[in-house]
Amino acid sequence: MREMVVHEVGMRDGLQMEERVVPTEQKTAWIEAVLRTGVDIVQVGSFVHPGRVPQMADTDRLFHHFTSPGGNPDGVLLSGLVLNEKGLERGLACGVDMFCMGVSASETHSLKNTRMSVADATRRIIAMARDAEKAGKRVQVSVQSAFGCGYEGPVPQERVLAIVKSFLDAGLRNLSLADTAGHATPERVEDLYRDVFALDQDIECACHFHNTYGLALANCYAALRVGVASFEGSIAGLGGCPFTAVAGGNTCTEDLVHALQRGGHRADIDLPALIDLARDVARFFGREMPGAVYRAGAIPERGLMPPGAREE
Amino acid sequence: MREMVVHEVGMRDGLQMEERVVPTEQKTAWIEAVLRTGVDIVQVGSFVHPGRVPQMADTDRLFHHFTSPGGNPDGVLLSGLVLNEKGLERGLACGVDMFCMGVSASETHSLKNTRMSVADATRRIIAMARDAEKAGKRVQVSVQSAFGCGYEGPVPQERVLAIVKSFLDAGLRNLSLADTAGHATPERVEDLYRDVFALDQDIECACHFHNTYGLALANCYAALRVGVASFEGSIAGLGGCPFTAVAGGNTCTEDLVHALQRGGHRADIDLPALIDLARDVARFFGREMPGAVYRAGAIPERGLMPPGAREE
Repeated sequence: MREMVVHEVGMRDGLQMEERVVPTEQKTAWIEAVLRTGVDIVQVGSFVHPGRVPQMADTDRLFHHFTSPGGNPDGVLLSGLVLNEKGLERGLACGVDMFCMGVSASETHSLKNTRMSVADATRRIIAMARDAEKAGKRVQVSVQSAFGCGYEGPVPQERVLAIVKSFLDAGLRNLSLADTAGHATPERVEDLYRDVFALDQDIECACHFHNTYGLALANCYAALRVGVASFEGSIAGLGGCPFTAVAGGNTCTEDLVHALQRGGHRADIDLPALIDLARDVARFFGREMPGAVYRAGAIPERGLMPPGAREE
Repeated sequence: MREMVVHEVGMRDGLQMEERVVPTEQKTAWIEAVLRTGVDIVQVGSFVHPGRVPQMADTDRLFHHFTSPGGNPDGVLLSGLVLNEKGLERGLACGVDMFCMGVSASETHSLKNTRMSVADATRRIIAMARDAEKAGKRVQVSVQSAFGCGYEGPVPQERVLAIVKSFLDAGLRNLSLADTAGHATPERVEDLYRDVFALDQDIECACHFHNTYGLALANCYAALRVGVASFEGSIAGLGGCPFTAVAGGNTCTEDLVHALQRGGHRADIDLPALIDLARDVARFFGREMPGAVYRAGAIPERGLMPPGAREE
């Protein structure tokens, strides 16, 4: 059985929509806690212009901290998101282990985000990925809006596969499909990953879902069924925007880990520590977070019948 | 393709844990709204002793209302839960279309609930089911705690299958497996339903999940994959207990219908009406409900990109 990989992206995708800027000391404490839980990859931040996303202004500083001696005692892989060449330069200067970068499968989304067509953005990301690899770094290239786009609606599967093929042709074999708008459904997930693995069954292809419509874990299960073994999530289900109805948080990491463990995977990850961390995050923001397991607690060996359960 | 059946149980399983008793007029309005949405079966209440569950004290009155001329213009199937012979008698007197009754697969749960062993409770339920059928009624027999028990923990699959076999041997072919404690996982769901359908592939076997650990929709998807075509849910995800951490709500009906519709099923159900109803339920209780879709709204044709989505 292939081992499942868990990539915590809460400190990046999870926080970037939060209005309240998390102090660097608080982020540091949270990242330290995540590093101790046994997850495989932790995304520390994104190298976006600080004026554009103030929440990410301390990304370089955080990387310097965690790549300094003793900063990451278990050697957990530290990932950073880069959007452009400038970001890549910053990331190379502060010790990023794994660079994450992506292309949107939606022309409208691509133009709004990068002012480039999908084709141009793909060429640019491939060039950046090669530069990062030349510098000895791991690279994960993603297709954003892979399951639908907030601007365009449905995204044809062939468009996603065309980008994946470009990545594979360029020798990039660590991929991720991101459900940026939260439109994925389990049926669609099985279809798309089946087609991706039909291109090359030996690639690593992660999944990145948002729980906007309650389907993140269903989508993870569908992905797992067809061979996906790498999952991106945010602690407590961070990533929703509390001020608008439309944005749902990422797949909730501790809910995902709980599900993986109940399915016989990754008993080594410290689920109680993830639950404690989610509770701390909920306390910090002063609101109930989307995660389920941090509220329910892990399933007790015995006892704690839900009140009223006697009725059915 | 087999058509999917949706059974709304929010007015029973969803409400019975709520401290605030919903006035009969309010329940009537909600049930009227559900009846207009196009779901197939609506559970009106349970025939439990009113002193035990005050929330269910008006069950007979509600049935009288909805079975009176003009009360149920589209002839939606009205179900009621019965726990004992007295309840069956009450249900027969007030026009229940479909009787739901069940046996727990957990000895401890069975003893606590019914003061009977699983074997005795099975015999009793089969006798009650036959009486209901003799009276010309539909009957759905369920196995409670089919995926785990809050008292005993894991419940061996063979115990569930033994009860199912007893039901089938008694000629009862409309079944439901209920995840009373919310312990089901998609892997377990696929396994158990496969074994159930191996006993008789032509039975109708519904699924009833709780979202305690965030897996209700993943479990529905797993069930659907192995042939389940009947789903029980509560509007807005009612059924959690706001005062304890352990109890999660039922599968959220509008989230389920949204997922079914995205998967190509049941375009006839009025999802916007379900969303309006969920919002009304949330307003009534004055708190955020577990459902996702009532907050996000249905996926717009175009537009409404989640803020921050540009970052990935």
